[in-house]
Amino acid sequence: MISVEEALQTILNSVQNFGVEEVPFIKSVGRTLKEDIKADRDFPPFNRVSMDGISIDYLNFKNGQRSFVIEGIQAAGSEQKTLQNSENCIEVMTGAVLPSNTSAVIRYEDVTIENEIATITINEIKENQNIHHRGKDGKTGDLLIKQNTIISAAEIGVLATVGKAIVKVAKQPKVMIVSTGDELVGVDETPLTHQIRRSNVFTLVSLLEKLNISSETAHLTDDKPILKEKIKEYLQDFDVLLFSGAVSKGKYDFLPEVFDELGVEKLFHKVGQRPGKPFFYGKTERSNVFGFPGNPISTFVNCLAYFYPWYYKSVGIEQQEENAILADDVSFKPSLTYFLQVKLSYRYGHLIATPISGNGSGDLASLVSTDAFIKLPTQQSEFKKGEVFPIIRYR
Amino acid sequence: MISVEEALQTILNSVQNFGVEEVPFIKSVGRTLKEDIKADRDFPPFNRVSMDGISIDYLNFKNGQRSFVIEGIQAAGSEQKTLQNSENCIEVMTGAVLPSNTSAVIRYEDVTIENEIATITINEIKENQNIHHRGKDGKTGDLLIKQNTIISAAEIGVLATVGKAIVKVAKQPKVMIVSTGDELVGVDETPLTHQIRRSNVFTLVSLLEKLNISSETAHLTDDKPILKEKIKEYLQDFDVLLFSGAVSKGKYDFLPEVFDELGVEKLFHKVGQRPGKPFFYGKTERSNVFGFPGNPISTFVNCLAYFYPWYYKSVGIEQQEENAILADDVSFKPSLTYFLQVKLSYRYGHLIATPISGNGSGDLASLVSTDAFIKLPTQQSEFKKGEVFPIIRYR
Repeated sequence: MISVEEALQTILNSVQNFGVEEVPFIKSVGRTLKEDIKADRDFPPFNRVSMDGISIDYLNFKNGQRSFVIEGIQAAGSEQKTLQNSENCIEVMTGAVLPSNTSAVIRYEDVTIENEIATITINEIKENQNIHHRGKDGKTGDLLIKQNTIISAAEIGVLATVGKAIVKVAKQPKVMIVSTGDELVGVDETPLTHQIRRSNVFTLVSLLEKLNISSETAHLTDDKPILKEKIKEYLQDFDVLLFSGAVSKGKYDFLPEVFDELGVEKLFHKVGQRPGKPFFYGKTERSNVFGFPGNPISTFVNCLAYFYPWYYKSVGIEQQEENAILADDVSFKPSLTYFLQVKLSYRYGHLIATPISGNGSGDLASLVSTDAFIKLPTQQSEFKKGEVFPIIRYR
Repeated sequence: MISVEEALQTILNSVQNFGVEEVPFIKSVGRTLKEDIKADRDFPPFNRVSMDGISIDYLNFKNGQRSFVIEGIQAAGSEQKTLQNSENCIEVMTGAVLPSNTSAVIRYEDVTIENEIATITINEIKENQNIHHRGKDGKTGDLLIKQNTIISAAEIGVLATVGKAIVKVAKQPKVMIVSTGDELVGVDETPLTHQIRRSNVFTLVSLLEKLNISSETAHLTDDKPILKEKIKEYLQDFDVLLFSGAVSKGKYDFLPEVFDELGVEKLFHKVGQRPGKPFFYGKTERSNVFGFPGNPISTFVNCLAYFYPWYYKSVGIEQQEENAILADDVSFKPSLTYFLQVKLSYRYGHLIATPISGNGSGDLASLVSTDAFIKLPTQQSEFKKGEVFPIIRYR
């Protein structure tokens, strides 16, 4: 049995490069950018009017002039105009190019207009006021978004601005999610007394959707020849196989044997943690095999604690560790890392984790009332209120 | 000009009920549950074996017996067996029904098996050990998920378990996003010197996708009759209209007039905040009209600060306010609420907000290097390192 830290390190050592693809920028949210995005022009690309009002030659104001004949209008989206007579003014709109021969914009609030003459009603204005100068926010060629950024709404705006209609992103892994267990029936079926409905595959599908990974699913009966035949195919066709169940010590827990016979290199089987201990991880040339224990909470926590970091590192994303303050004392004697379900709350800038003890690894319903796992280390058995530990959020 | 608090309250007072629809549960992630989900049977539905091993009649162990003839196997998914001879045992698999006449499960690790006889190698076992009793996690009819919960992977697992193949969720609003401004060209076009590319509509589309709302988009030229004709249609067809631009004081900022002429009731126009001040909000019988200022950061912050809470309240979700600790002193003199961009980090369970000052409301690129807005109140002008304020995350 290896530690959680060793297990994670082993998994992070075998990340995979899925390659790069081009997608329309508007479809790229949640994907990982695989090119640097640079400014295609200065920002703003011209001296940009930033208030609706009039633009004047500042020198005339400085020399005492307050009333200016309106020579014309500079609308946003029109070619730059030129102030013909420096004692006149031009009405200007936010977003417009600043007319040439002008050097200050006075907003409508500080002007009265009568008979095509604008009179400034304040006594102090500054040269260049309300002008957003060309290149102030950035110069042509400036790096705007670094590659290996997860694309969100903010990046979408920048991609649009620089005209990146098509963008390079990391390809997503091809994932097959397999459940086993003859006690399982479909969601729309009525189980017999000794049966239950399949749920883990759907939980995994949803957890992967959160990463924008679409996956395929299958259910296999606990029959070794069938398992072997199917898994052989999956190993050829998919980058990742996620299993739920059949990795423990039961008579019908055929997966470890089947993996071995199909040439899957076992990197570990069993991790010093609760829940989720009988976790299998192995690989072939093509494929990564995550064999999660069949209990709902075990599958859930292991997907978050191992598959997520593996995926993020594979596509090039660095994750920031989040941690929280324990709200109650917790005692946990076994020499295992304890993934304890917590409810999160914010008080005065502190992230508080209140433990909600479920009924063990089978109690899927307890996930509904919690937000995260707090990761309590193996070395300790008493955890005090106020101590800080890493958390893994699922909400 | 009203305050941010008044503006938000006004908006929250005119939330809208979009109704309820049924969707396949696996498509329901991110949607708001509109029915209580109850246990359709006890959980577990039978006395469930929770370790692979053997099950025995505990009394015989108590009376000193250590070796038990294996009478059979109880696999997961098989009908319950009965231990025929109370001095024998049955091999049992995790997830199986506990055979009747047995009262303890001993895991394989604590047993040796030879010639169909299992011998227990430890001296202490407890009655009922490794048995997850029927109903321990919940009874038939227990409330598992309350309505008005946002459905995530955890809820998906519960929905599958109780056989909710089809689930009632809040309908999403029908949203039209409209940009205006004659300076704007398409993302795949090369702008002339005085033009820029459209970006705000795409940012808004992405921000709405985060709420699982799909939207339509349109671009209208700054021409009053056209605006009026089109907006009249939109007001009939959509629950929400989001505008970006044309709500300020410019000569071509026709929207407030057009809204008025089309019978949109103005609830406010201008909010005491920076950025995002010239924000218009109004409504008709059918439709809610959010007129965001055209600057990229203004549109972005107002969508998060106003449309998001309006949407959440409309579908029945209660949001938890998040707050963070300011990492640097900030000075902001105007009597306005200041939405300042910050980078978030976690230190010892504290959420730290480090201000990154952009170049003003036009600087979309600054959003790329930040995670949230911190909301600095109007009443204060000096904000000290260590003070705590609400934040609005966008990452």
